[in-house]
Amino acid sequence: MYALAIHGGAGALPRTQLSAERERAYQQGLAQALSAGQAILADDGCALDAVEAAVTVLEDDALFNAGRGAVLTLDGTVELDAAIMDGAKLRAGAVAVVTCVRNPVRLARRVLEDTPHVFLAGGGAERFAAEIGFVPVANEYFITLCRQQQLAALTGQPSNVTALDEPPLGTVGAVARDSHGQLAAATSTGGMTGKRPGRVGDSPVIGAGTYADNHSCAVSTTGHGEWFLRTVQAYDIAARMRYGGASLSDAVSASIEQRLPQLGASGGLIAVDHRGEIVIRYNTPAMFRASVRSGEPVSIHVY
Amino acid sequence: MYALAIHGGAGALPRTQLSAERERAYQQGLAQALSAGQAILADDGCALDAVEAAVTVLEDDALFNAGRGAVLTLDGTVELDAAIMDGAKLRAGAVAVVTCVRNPVRLARRVLEDTPHVFLAGGGAERFAAEIGFVPVANEYFITLCRQQQLAALTGQPSNVTALDEPPLGTVGAVARDSHGQLAAATSTGGMTGKRPGRVGDSPVIGAGTYADNHSCAVSTTGHGEWFLRTVQAYDIAARMRYGGASLSDAVSASIEQRLPQLGASGGLIAVDHRGEIVIRYNTPAMFRASVRSGEPVSIHVY
Repeated sequence: MYALAIHGGAGALPRTQLSAERERAYQQGLAQALSAGQAILADDGCALDAVEAAVTVLEDDALFNAGRGAVLTLDGTVELDAAIMDGAKLRAGAVAVVTCVRNPVRLARRVLEDTPHVFLAGGGAERFAAEIGFVPVANEYFITLCRQQQLAALTGQPSNVTALDEPPLGTVGAVARDSHGQLAAATSTGGMTGKRPGRVGDSPVIGAGTYADNHSCAVSTTGHGEWFLRTVQAYDIAARMRYGGASLSDAVSASIEQRLPQLGASGGLIAVDHRGEIVIRYNTPAMFRASVRSGEPVSIHVY
Repeated sequence: MYALAIHGGAGALPRTQLSAERERAYQQGLAQALSAGQAILADDGCALDAVEAAVTVLEDDALFNAGRGAVLTLDGTVELDAAIMDGAKLRAGAVAVVTCVRNPVRLARRVLEDTPHVFLAGGGAERFAAEIGFVPVANEYFITLCRQQQLAALTGQPSNVTALDEPPLGTVGAVARDSHGQLAAATSTGGMTGKRPGRVGDSPVIGAGTYADNHSCAVSTTGHGEWFLRTVQAYDIAARMRYGGASLSDAVSASIEQRLPQLGASGGLIAVDHRGEIVIRYNTPAMFRASVRSGEPVSIHVY
């Protein structure tokens, strides 16, 4: 059996701001990404390939805050972060602050496969991309009118630039358990609107936004990146299972529904354990999410 | 009571390569750094100030792989990473790939204090440094003849560039418990000799190289950065205590002496818990380390 879950971000998106038409568009985007990952898993492919494929589709979809359509920095530019992790061998790859790589998750995968390192940032990451034949895109490729309007609205009220109570809805991620019992996770994001150039969030940080270990679970998070860095959010779920003996569901509940609200932190996560159990939970009003398990129907939801 | 421990790196340093004179120089550097942190703690100062002060001294000491005297990238340049964390409120600051900031740990502290973010990398981190009045230094300030020779030796044998079995001895760090019961941790490094430009190691990653939480412990690691990223090393110690009920000593033993060798990873760490218990352990031949607790003599060791 296989299991796959994806997310397109969690946040305070009021129902009134999401027209039925726009909601359908998001659901379609999620369906396409889920399908790309599922095709690999249904063909006995590996979890690592499945999460990379699903996240690549979401990066290419301008609706989501990753790749094309990512949110803008205070400078009006796009800076992208991504990570991917192989739960079988604890191999990981991550990139941060990349400005000219169309699919950051694919670059993260190459860091995992083709370097002795785990994490490359900025110009060094882009140089590696060029060396391995990635064709650079102009930063304008990523920028959409919608994100420019969001930044303008934000910078019209400078005091809100630093507000952490408006999570950047749209970070994307995937977790999978393949038919061989291997786990993998991947996350990709443009971060938060109006972020300071050079800011690195939780998404590319192994243990914070992304984590996978066959012995516990695979996790991808979305929400208050700064809080998820401080709480080491993704690994916290695995540790509650590994050292506390919690089930995946209990670990996620304790973390997302109890600890984070106590800290004033909001967001959500998707997770899958070695048995293929999928848990998706969030303490925000909405979370774009979809999942499927072999032999079961596809599930796609926003609220 | 207060407790303070510092390290100057762990690795495979054969006794024959360390003359008595050079060993004394390292011990003197450690003594000065310990003294800077101890002065703050003895004056009822806070743990966060103490670890920053101790690490600043080690960054300025050319013997250690942090700040001046840091190891070189494949390009022959210096790129610095640092992080600091406040165990009282889980506040954290980190910088990576900075090339013109004399004391990266002080910049990390300012990220913690003066931005809504946790982690800044590359040019964005340097721009923040300039904005808050840090006077930039030329990259040459950091470069020593010794590190140039190390890089030359390494690049003479290109196949060794990627060797992970020669940890970069010299990463520095500090952990403290102050008289008010607060914990803090800080780590600073130049990474590994011959690293790819843009490479980020475990040191600046909250949860991997640096972590502090009053409810468990404060940790600073040194060794195989890539492995410590994958094992989420620093938070793993806290999680073994928090969720597994282990003592600090048992948590560190299980991780450093059992799990890491199984994975083929080497290194060490310093840690202190809320009662002021200090644990220093490493699975390498040597680790530069020093510690002190109120009313007890100073301890400084290499082997």
